[in-house]
Amino acid sequence: MISPHINAPAGGEDQRVTLADLQKQVQVLQDIEAIKRLKHAYFRAIDSADLALMNTLVTLDVKVHFVGGDYEWRLNGRDEYIEAVGCNFNSEVIAQHNGHHPEITIINDTEAEGIWYLHDNFYNLRAKLFTTGSAFYHDRYRKVDGQWRIASTRYTRHYEIVTPIETVPNITVHYLGKHGRVIDKDCHTGALCKDVQ
Amino acid sequence: MISPHINAPAGGEDQRVTLADLQKQVQVLQDIEAIKRLKHAYFRAIDSADLALMNTLVTLDVKVHFVGGDYEWRLNGRDEYIEAVGCNFNSEVIAQHNGHHPEITIINDTEAEGIWYLHDNFYNLRAKLFTTGSAFYHDRYRKVDGQWRIASTRYTRHYEIVTPIETVPNITVHYLGKHGRVIDKDCHTGALCKDVQ
Amino acid sequence: MISPHINAPAGGEDQRVTLADLQKQVQVLQDIEAIKRLKHAYFRAIDSADLALMNTLVTLDVKVHFVGGDYEWRLNGRDEYIEAVGCNFNSEVIAQHNGHHPEITIINDTEAEGIWYLHDNFYNLRAKLFTTGSAFYHDRYRKVDGQWRIASTRYTRHYEIVTPIETVPNITVHYLGKHGRVIDKDCHTGALCKDVQ
Repeated sequence: MISPHINAPAGGEDQRVTLADLQKQVQVLQDIEAIKRLKHAYFRAIDSADLALMNTLVTLDVKVHFVGGDYEWRLNGRDEYIEAVGCNFNSEVIAQHNGHHPEITIINDTEAEGIWYLHDNFYNLRAKLFTTGSAFYHDRYRKVDGQWRIASTRYTRHYEIVTPIETVPNITVHYLGKHGRVIDKDCHTGALCKDVQ
Repeated sequence: MISPHINAPAGGEDQRVTLADLQKQVQVLQDIEAIKRLKHAYFRAIDSADLALMNTLVTLDVKVHFVGGDYEWRLNGRDEYIEAVGCNFNSEVIAQHNGHHPEITIINDTEAEGIWYLHDNFYNLRAKLFTTGSAFYHDRYRKVDGQWRIASTRYTRHYEIVTPIETVPNITVHYLGKHGRVIDKDCHTGALCKDVQ
Repeated sequence: MISPHINAPAGGEDQRVTLADLQKQVQVLQDIEAIKRLKHAYFRAIDSADLALMNTLVTLDVKVHFVGGDYEWRLNGRDEYIEAVGCNFNSEVIAQHNGHHPEITIINDTEAEGIWYLHDNFYNLRAKLFTTGSAFYHDRYRKVDGQWRIASTRYTRHYEIVTPIETVPNITVHYLGKHGRVIDKDCHTGALCKDVQ
């Protein structure tokens, strides 16, 4: 018969752990890594306007609320969010969004939350504005069919600086310029385009 | 009776691991994650001047030594450090400090060390100076009452560029402007304020 | 006799895991952490022109292919790569390369791949050009003698902006200025120097 307890010598303490206990601890580490990777793919998806990838990263009922200095995103559901990404990460912008410093908390087997430190650089070549700044994301994640998804994401800007682009910079590579939507042709959600950076 | 060894098929090698061995390995991974999270919260604390949060992140005897191009921080103890943070991350600065590329080494159950790659942007609106650059942190961590804390942290700048702010930028969000200390009113550690960026 | 299965209560599911299974799962997490750390050291090595460190991070047959807006690196083998790093991260540049958002996949015990989001700032003080931008690395890693190494690394720029440096900035710290190679004296691979940023 198996004794469920083995004396673990860690820390000199009398810590007893079962295989089942340890499996739960490993599961938490796996979940944290999976959620980091999820958010990492999310940043790749938005800056590349990769809507097919984004479709796999958020829940059907995802809630989004971003409050910037001169914009606000409040979106409900995957379709609305993906449309907003496609429209705003268009061929006339250069987008760089980096998420640093994840603080991930696993609540239970299917729910988790996370804080991230956003730093972004955003060139709107149509509006001739460069926006840079930071924010702290407060996210909720949900495991659906074995995969972690972003269930809600919100931030209020920490700092934001908007600078007019006086001279168009020497852009030697521009992925979205080639692969992003053409605004007038493909983007019919004018309100969203106007309301966001 | 339990045989302490089970043949693990990993790598085709004849690796034998006990539950206690594996628990130690998992503990190392948990410690690495906890230390990353600690440092991540530290960056959130400084850039938000969240002194209550900072109070939970460093040891009572924390040692700080930062060498920049035109500043040097040399601080001993939590009180001195928190006062320096409160004073210098005041309402007339915009601070962005990001720590990348953690290389964490667990020395034993209660001691660890880490290297991080700092990138920072710092707007001093009073002195009208913008400082940007990088540095490599060399940290020591200590586990106190079950929680990892920063026990010492030091860097020498890798590069640093200081640019006069000729025109005040269009700051559309400024968290510290609202929540940071008012220098003349709340900050009595003039020497520290002068000596740092 | 040991029953290989213990009922793990995680998630309310009837998950049975053996110690050997769990060891494999832990090994994957250890490998992911080791590969992140490898790439983190790589960024420290290039920006510091630490060729001795770089020597320990790549395989003998490493393949490198970077496609920028006005440069291309295509290198074969460790010696060629290290020479290129030493030559281009010289005393007349300031280099900042940060790799964000790792998405690491362990293929088997000795092979893995990874995606990273590069953000870089590069000041070429001789050519008087500042280059900034982003890219997605697609890497392959190989475990050699128990150590993960970079076996191949490639990217095509995502965006790149090149700005003339009209006025030399106020550089208050410059590590490579002191420790990088002196181009005319030490760098005989002129072609490489010219072809890269």
